[in-house]
Amino acid sequence: MIRFECDYAEGAHPEILALLEKTNVEQTPGYGLDPYCEEAKKYIKKACENDEIDVHFLVGGTQTNLTVIASILKPHQGVIAAVSGHIYTHETGAIEACGHRIITLDSSDGKISAAQIQKVCEQHDKDVNKEHTVQPGMVFISNPTEHGTIYSKQELISIKEVCKEYGLPLYLDGARLGYGLVAEENDLTLADITELCDVYYIGGTKIGTLFGEAVIIRNEKLKKDFRYHIKQRGGMLAKGRILGIQFLQLFKNNLYFDISLHAIKQAKRIKQAFQEAGYDFLYDSPTNQLFPILPVQKVEELSKEYAFIRWEELSSEKVVVRFVTSWMTREEDVSKLIEDILKD
Amino acid sequence: MIRFECDYAEGAHPEILALLEKTNVEQTPGYGLDPYCEEAKKYIKKACENDEIDVHFLVGGTQTNLTVIASILKPHQGVIAAVSGHIYTHETGAIEACGHRIITLDSSDGKISAAQIQKVCEQHDKDVNKEHTVQPGMVFISNPTEHGTIYSKQELISIKEVCKEYGLPLYLDGARLGYGLVAEENDLTLADITELCDVYYIGGTKIGTLFGEAVIIRNEKLKKDFRYHIKQRGGMLAKGRILGIQFLQLFKNNLYFDISLHAIKQAKRIKQAFQEAGYDFLYDSPTNQLFPILPVQKVEELSKEYAFIRWEELSSEKVVVRFVTSWMTREEDVSKLIEDILKD
Amino acid sequence: MIRFECDYAEGAHPEILALLEKTNVEQTPGYGLDPYCEEAKKYIKKACENDEIDVHFLVGGTQTNLTVIASILKPHQGVIAAVSGHIYTHETGAIEACGHRIITLDSSDGKISAAQIQKVCEQHDKDVNKEHTVQPGMVFISNPTEHGTIYSKQELISIKEVCKEYGLPLYLDGARLGYGLVAEENDLTLADITELCDVYYIGGTKIGTLFGEAVIIRNEKLKKDFRYHIKQRGGMLAKGRILGIQFLQLFKNNLYFDISLHAIKQAKRIKQAFQEAGYDFLYDSPTNQLFPILPVQKVEELSKEYAFIRWEELSSEKVVVRFVTSWMTREEDVSKLIEDILKD
Amino acid sequence: MIRFECDYAEGAHPEILALLEKTNVEQTPGYGLDPYCEEAKKYIKKACENDEIDVHFLVGGTQTNLTVIASILKPHQGVIAAVSGHIYTHETGAIEACGHRIITLDSSDGKISAAQIQKVCEQHDKDVNKEHTVQPGMVFISNPTEHGTIYSKQELISIKEVCKEYGLPLYLDGARLGYGLVAEENDLTLADITELCDVYYIGGTKIGTLFGEAVIIRNEKLKKDFRYHIKQRGGMLAKGRILGIQFLQLFKNNLYFDISLHAIKQAKRIKQAFQEAGYDFLYDSPTNQLFPILPVQKVEELSKEYAFIRWEELSSEKVVVRFVTSWMTREEDVSKLIEDILKD
Repeated sequence: MIRFECDYAEGAHPEILALLEKTNVEQTPGYGLDPYCEEAKKYIKKACENDEIDVHFLVGGTQTNLTVIASILKPHQGVIAAVSGHIYTHETGAIEACGHRIITLDSSDGKISAAQIQKVCEQHDKDVNKEHTVQPGMVFISNPTEHGTIYSKQELISIKEVCKEYGLPLYLDGARLGYGLVAEENDLTLADITELCDVYYIGGTKIGTLFGEAVIIRNEKLKKDFRYHIKQRGGMLAKGRILGIQFLQLFKNNLYFDISLHAIKQAKRIKQAFQEAGYDFLYDSPTNQLFPILPVQKVEELSKEYAFIRWEELSSEKVVVRFVTSWMTREEDVSKLIEDILKD
Repeated sequence: MIRFECDYAEGAHPEILALLEKTNVEQTPGYGLDPYCEEAKKYIKKACENDEIDVHFLVGGTQTNLTVIASILKPHQGVIAAVSGHIYTHETGAIEACGHRIITLDSSDGKISAAQIQKVCEQHDKDVNKEHTVQPGMVFISNPTEHGTIYSKQELISIKEVCKEYGLPLYLDGARLGYGLVAEENDLTLADITELCDVYYIGGTKIGTLFGEAVIIRNEKLKKDFRYHIKQRGGMLAKGRILGIQFLQLFKNNLYFDISLHAIKQAKRIKQAFQEAGYDFLYDSPTNQLFPILPVQKVEELSKEYAFIRWEELSSEKVVVRFVTSWMTREEDVSKLIEDILKD
Repeated sequence: MIRFECDYAEGAHPEILALLEKTNVEQTPGYGLDPYCEEAKKYIKKACENDEIDVHFLVGGTQTNLTVIASILKPHQGVIAAVSGHIYTHETGAIEACGHRIITLDSSDGKISAAQIQKVCEQHDKDVNKEHTVQPGMVFISNPTEHGTIYSKQELISIKEVCKEYGLPLYLDGARLGYGLVAEENDLTLADITELCDVYYIGGTKIGTLFGEAVIIRNEKLKKDFRYHIKQRGGMLAKGRILGIQFLQLFKNNLYFDISLHAIKQAKRIKQAFQEAGYDFLYDSPTNQLFPILPVQKVEELSKEYAFIRWEELSSEKVVVRFVTSWMTREEDVSKLIEDILKD
Repeated sequence: MIRFECDYAEGAHPEILALLEKTNVEQTPGYGLDPYCEEAKKYIKKACENDEIDVHFLVGGTQTNLTVIASILKPHQGVIAAVSGHIYTHETGAIEACGHRIITLDSSDGKISAAQIQKVCEQHDKDVNKEHTVQPGMVFISNPTEHGTIYSKQELISIKEVCKEYGLPLYLDGARLGYGLVAEENDLTLADITELCDVYYIGGTKIGTLFGEAVIIRNEKLKKDFRYHIKQRGGMLAKGRILGIQFLQLFKNNLYFDISLHAIKQAKRIKQAFQEAGYDFLYDSPTNQLFPILPVQKVEELSKEYAFIRWEELSSEKVVVRFVTSWMTREEDVSKLIEDILKD
């Protein structure tokens, strides 16, 4: 069985494991105050082209989302997000457990627009009983989204403008950020993201590490006391250097982007095969997640040798499936899959 | 500088790193549903001599404490703990952030007694305004405690009896459980702990792993839906097998207890040296944390070559310090330290 | 200006004020433990035809909703409700502030169906990643709904059956319960409500009292420790008898139903006038809230002498408005309004 | 049985009931946006000698405390309070339920000192692991305290200075504020309190109203969005005018202070009788709560005709009891009590 179910099926990039092993017996201070974390932060700041940002390393995505969001919102505020956003669909109510509503916006492709955000805020502002309703307090987007789509620079600028108008911090969930940044259709740089978002995270779990997400805080007001929040929510790793070492290896020689590109290239090969075979896609994803619409029979055939997700039953004959590539996807596995996609 | 500051200064036991590397390119399901987690659970159940327990792997101690406690208590309930308990002193109010008070009991050595628990519960029960006060809902102890002391079997049995009388689940924080179980003065087995506690955790972070704590739930009523709680609090590792692999290695060949014993032997050597040199101890610890009371001058001398914690200033002349050994402590480092302790 | 904006524009029924005055200098224990609360509970139990229920008096609706819901749900659970439910639209995220998501169901008329609840629960149960999502933990309905509609006995029985199947307590917000029970189209008795709901409240604020809601807990499992929850959420009135006195007066001589009926009769007169004048309604409400669709010009005319709510702008020409009657609505005011409705 | 158990055993001052009755059939907007609330606020601002304050009316003390505290603190912050403070002893963990620890300070008389606050803040600041501990975020005091004692102007100024140094808002619980302000030993005015506290409340429940507390917010930063917090915590009364009417009556003609003085005069008479009879007091209270230490036999004798609280058993022979006077205490009842106190 060859797995295209997700991008976290394997361990870590071998260079990362090697550095963990090489440094294993060294003694360092705990809780992220070690030299490896420091060095990793320097390389990340360089990649972001911004020396003023704060960088923190956390273990996983849900933990990062809840810690960031809870650190920003006041009790009566909610976070605006797509109805398909990870915080709404797959975090077991983690945000609500911190006391906050997710104010959901409809989305056909995983993205939300500046106009949608503006409408919610305008409606709230003009409501004579607004004190009886949840106040929009920040905006959550993911890039790439949960549907593999990405924001254009212009879309992000527009969202930023609305956020500014209403005083809402903009937070970007970058669980798969690398895959988005190296996509052919992408026109955003890491420096752009840094400038346009108040806070975001660069995902490691899905791109090369055993685990780990690097939170970037650009907005000065959001920096204060963030380490208290990490600790309180259970996200401060005792041996923090394990996170530092991994991100150091990812960022000191461009490894993060190189392995992201590998995944995108393999996804593209698969995408072209599905297109060649005449299949449509539910979402037009330029990244490492593909959502082809297949006849039931084709799904069953492919299921014999490949693991992938049955995403949605469109009808008794058509099924949307999800194929995901990763930094570890083997070229030969993709070649074999392509052959089977194209087979009648 | 030789470090005796804590027991999480290094990486992981080499056998653990080796297994991580060996299994690195395998593809497995995520979120702890992989074969390594399954196998690790089997060995842990065997070590606990109990097939009915549920075992879950989480990343760190604060995360584990808050997840377990929040899964048990109702909103109006608090958790009884020593005033020196980790949840009260070093978790940034994580328990309160989940909505619950810590009902603190005085403690001279880190332990609490059955009588203390009984008194709190009795007072609550007879209070005519009890609905205006926090209801005791569970008991938290740590073994070894934050002061290195350990509970005797009889003490634990007595606590269990009071807990039963008042319907309070008993939870044991075993961040350093291995060090406690192999101590010469200890008369508790892992099977005893399993039987006497409703839920507890076997700490990996401080005994051999990169990170990781194994939660053991014996009480049937506390098992339901625990994975929801893990996910909601951000503790469900995507590549859950990283935890499974580490605990598998720790428990399949007794490694956990072997390396715990190493730490205890080294601690004992240091303890004897301090005793021989005529120093008293703040707490009478039989485990890997030692709290000798030293003259300021001795502290300054030792500080030149050894890192350790200045725990408490007793007077202008006397300081309590903390020396900690671990599974990684080198015998030759200890020998050198002993020489310096005994030097006039 | 004659007000038809809401049903809480005036003070209390004169008989209630009279009893408050008559008992004013008596000394009683606080916190709802006085003889008036006891007596009021007896009359309410009689009206509910159930001696086993627990009755508690709280001050207001949002407070009652958050206290009941937070007392029932576990951290990973959410409450199913109509998207138009008061807890979702007008309580400033009070439920989320207690840690819980509201799982919203679409509704065209304020009601939700057994089939909708079943679908949500089925989908949750069959989700292989259900632990990553919020678990349905209870059901919230309001009767009458926020749109003035009411549940039939058969609808409520069907909902109850689904709730039973999935182990979900059923909670009914009865802020306007009296108005629903005396409506001509209603086929539910207070005894039915008591039997079919696990917990509900009989609203006083909108039917005759200065303030106050009577929570009825029938489900034995939900009774325990409820007074702790009331106190913790700030809902335990020091001079609890003020609540007891009001509900005593409401229930000892059927006053609650008599004044509810008055409101319904006046609403019916207004409804008939709108019908006679040829206007449609957005919701087909048999209770004290009416939602006629009026031409903009008519709205402007009526606005000169009557206060009411502009509910929704359907187009540039048509507006939905809300007229509300109450236990205090004066017949002569209604007569004048009818005249103006019918005027060309 | 004559009751000296508490100061909320009766209803409301007759003038308040009269105004409620007089205004009963008027129609007003809800939620505290009515003319009576507006007028009451004007009189309160006048009494505070400050036109810039915000005034809000809430129903009860626990509700007020939790709403104010939750509106101020960030998730990682706690509130400093005396271990005897109402929020710690008699609110069922309401503050923790909002996510925050109460950082308790020892107190022999219910008060805390500037030096104690300073020490806690200094220790936190110099802790190298401070991010692992709860950050002090505000200070809670009550005046009079739960033991009847009051702060001097100088004490309050000193506390204010420490609060300023550490950026901590100072919040005063004035459940019995009137009784404190009219005490002979008091040197604080309402204007002083307003200037020295960032936020506080003037208690009505214990001084003349059916219920109700007036929150005064002086600190500009704490004013924003407070009505959202009131609504979210269930404290926004639908018929808000009931609160406005009561505070209007209390403050338009000095009624609040007049009736407070009555209670203090009666307390003084009782205090002198206990002194004359040779009894000591546990706390030296100049307000309406007295804590004499009585022989068991005397306690039993008095219990036959008077209701009061057995506060603490000092020994098998000596008991501390609590006698409380109120705005409603009858002079003749006090005369009779005095006679019985002085009887051998």
